[in-house]
Formats: sequence, structure tokens, C-alpha cells
Amino acid sequence: MSADCVFCKIVSGAIPSLRLFEDRHAVAFLDIAPLAPGHTLLVPRRHATRLIDLPPDELADVVRPLPRLARAVLEASGAEGLNVLQNNGPAAGQVVEHVHIHLIPRRRGDGLGFRWNAGRYGAGEAEDIAARLRRALECAGA
Amino acid sequence: MSADCVFCKIVSGAIPSLRLFEDRHAVAFLDIAPLAPGHTLLVPRRHATRLIDLPPDELADVVRPLPRLARAVLEASGAEGLNVLQNNGPAAGQVVEHVHIHLIPRRRGDGLGFRWNAGRYGAGEAEDIAARLRRALECAGA
Repeated sequence: MSADCVFCKIVSGAIPSLRLFEDRHAVAFLDIAPLAPGHTLLVPRRHATRLIDLPPDELADVVRPLPRLARAVLEASGAEGLNVLQNNGPAAGQVVEHVHIHLIPRRRGDGLGFRWNAGRYGAGEAEDIAARLRRALECAGA
Repeated sequence: MSADCVFCKIVSGAIPSLRLFEDRHAVAFLDIAPLAPGHTLLVPRRHATRLIDLPPDELADVVRPLPRLARAVLEASGAEGLNVLQNNGPAAGQVVEHVHIHLIPRRRGDGLGFRWNAGRYGAGEAEDIAARLRRALECAGA
């Protein structure tokens, strides 16, 4: 637990939340500033700042409730679709510095969604970045 | 495997890709229409359309490489942040009907990110949706 972390305080109950689910590894609660009604957060109990700070088995334990949570969010919100989003770092939109997974209910024309400005690689560019990625993976631990 | 699924064909090798990682459960490869250089997809080997179609243990197995992949994408792309995104249904931006997890490198001012039009619940609204979510969770299976 991190002393100044809002989500650690929600996990411990020191800050109230509308809790939806909990198990040994994770807690799910309503986002109080929702992108759509039913917008839900799933967080690991243990404090970790970014995805890269989570051991693989801990991440595996944290996400097991996600399919069930997704079914419930779709059912309870009546949404047509769902985004699952996890932001790492301020440049990626992360505000609270405790890993959290958003479940965002979606409807056509709701004005939400990721800004999808897809590009194309030039000649050799994809092969270059793939080679860098493979080298980085060798040094990236478990 | 689903006969007409592009990602099943990438997993089997029938369609070429720049493959970055594979294990018994999942395959990672470069998105050929990247939002940023290094944009990577992680997909389960077994065909499943949506997150809600994945058994919890299979999801757990699929995501174990994510922290390592995230470290490698950050390192290889030189990005400042990273979004992990999984879209369910056309209303949520899903195009290929095989579960896939995007790793999207991010930089400040890159014009990407989720459209964050956060709202507030009116009196009693959060409690109402939380109650519906808890009921839905009871019926949502494992």
C-alpha cells in the first residue's frame, strides 16, 4: 500500500466507493467521473504504478474477473460495446498512479472511443521496429 | 480456428506478419496500420470474438506476457507512455472479430488517446447503476 494513493485508500475502505466486486487480488468499483453510466475500474489490491511493475502471475490473477465484469457492465448499462483500457504514464492519460483497468460502456455515436489516426510504415520501417522490439524483448525480463 | 478470421490466419502463419513473441497461449505481432511506430497486437491463439468469450484462466494465460511486451514496446519505440486497449463490438471500435489487445506507444501531443468526456452521476444514479451491476454480476458466470 502506498500512503498517498487514492486507489489504495479505496481498496482499504479508507475512501468510500461503490464497490462491485472483490477477491484476494483485485477490487472493482464505479468510476465516479464516468465516461458513460456503468464505467467501472478494476484495480490490483497491491500498489503498483504501471503495468510494467506487475509480475506476470499477479496480472493474470487481477484480470481473471474481467470477462464476468464485462458481461455485467454490458448487461447493467445496456451498452452495445465495451472498451477495456489501461493507461500507463501521463502521456497516455494516466491520472491516478495505481494500475487500473477501465471498462467503458459504448454506444454508436456516443462521441467516445480512441482517436484512431492510423498510419502506414514506409519501406523497411516495420522490419526495423520489429527488430528493435525483438531485441528489447530479450532484455525485458519475464 | 475460425475459417475466415484474419488473426487466426496470422496465428497459423497462413497470412504473414512481423511476429514479435509467441507462446502456447498467445501471439504478438506488429499492427500493420499503426497509430504510432511499434503499435503491437497480442492475440489469443484460440479463436474467440470478444473478451466475454474467454474463460478466465485462458485470459490469464494470454495476458502474462503483457508487462514484458509493454517494457519492450516502450524501449523500442522510445515512447513516454503506453495505452493498452481491447475493443469489444463495432460500437467500441472492434474491426477484426478475434480478441486482440493493442499496445499503443504514446507521446505528449501525439493527438491520440481516448476521448475523455467524463460526466458526473446525479443524485442516486451511481447507487442505481451499482445495484444493477451487482445483480448482473450474480448472473454473469465465472
